[in-house]
Amino acid sequence: MTGPECKACIGAWPRLDHFIADCGLTRAYLHEDQFFPGWTVLLLKQHATELFHLSRDDRSSLIEEVSAVAGVLAREWRAGKINYELLGNQLPHVHWHLIPRLPQDPAPLEPVWCITHEPVRLTPDNLTSMLERLRKIWPGPITQTAQTE
Amino acid sequence: MTGPECKACIGAWPRLDHFIADCGLTRAYLHEDQFFPGWTVLLLKQHATELFHLSRDDRSSLIEEVSAVAGVLAREWRAGKINYELLGNQLPHVHWHLIPRLPQDPAPLEPVWCITHEPVRLTPDNLTSMLERLRKIWPGPITQTAQTE
Repeated sequence: MTGPECKACIGAWPRLDHFIADCGLTRAYLHEDQFFPGWTVLLLKQHATELFHLSRDDRSSLIEEVSAVAGVLAREWRAGKINYELLGNQLPHVHWHLIPRLPQDPAPLEPVWCITHEPVRLTPDNLTSMLERLRKIWPGPITQTAQTE
Repeated sequence: MTGPECKACIGAWPRLDHFIADCGLTRAYLHEDQFFPGWTVLLLKQHATELFHLSRDDRSSLIEEVSAVAGVLAREWRAGKINYELLGNQLPHVHWHLIPRLPQDPAPLEPVWCITHEPVRLTPDNLTSMLERLRKIWPGPITQTAQTE
């Protein structure tokens, strides 16, 4: 599944108006549900479904981007823990969910997927100010853009 | 939290009788619940809670180990997808859940955490034969052992 069959490749997800920054091999987006504040999605630019389909160099760059973004999120939200999840059950295109877990988390021991809640959509103004705030503290291009770009 | 306060550091989890192999920076264990066949835990030998607390070299080696083990699991179980999860909500010591998702999966679109089920414990004989089977196909020492060892 790639090209027109992949929602990530055609830009149908994540929401383009939630784009934060280009990190090199990946693009970062604020997750559309901000019930867990700071939830960010790192989407690989190239189409791949599994880590072991990437080159060693790309895996190394990818984990640098994951780590740098996680560090920014942890500092910004004073997170007790970051959850790093690469699932792809619904969208088999490599993307990481990076989720700050906060002291006021309703169920800090549980995976976010198990915590029933109404999705929190930011208002347009709040989304804009959140994206601006994140871009100011973003680590910048973390790795070189892939040659596949 | 480290040393006697960390269940991973004192060897209280994962179960030592589920040990598969030493991968370099990590040790691999079969997860004690095999409802999802092949579920494996990769435990970092050194104590760390977040990816961004590691050195760049260690992150690179770590993701090589994660990727190589995921590739073995995918081939062995003919998985449609691998889930890679580094959470640490209950045990904040870096460990990866590597979970093959199979065609006969009861809820292939959902994270495993949301799928209510009775845990599946292997019998001692089945555990032994599963560990032996895995060791035969294991990629061997994937990276050099960390200097911190």
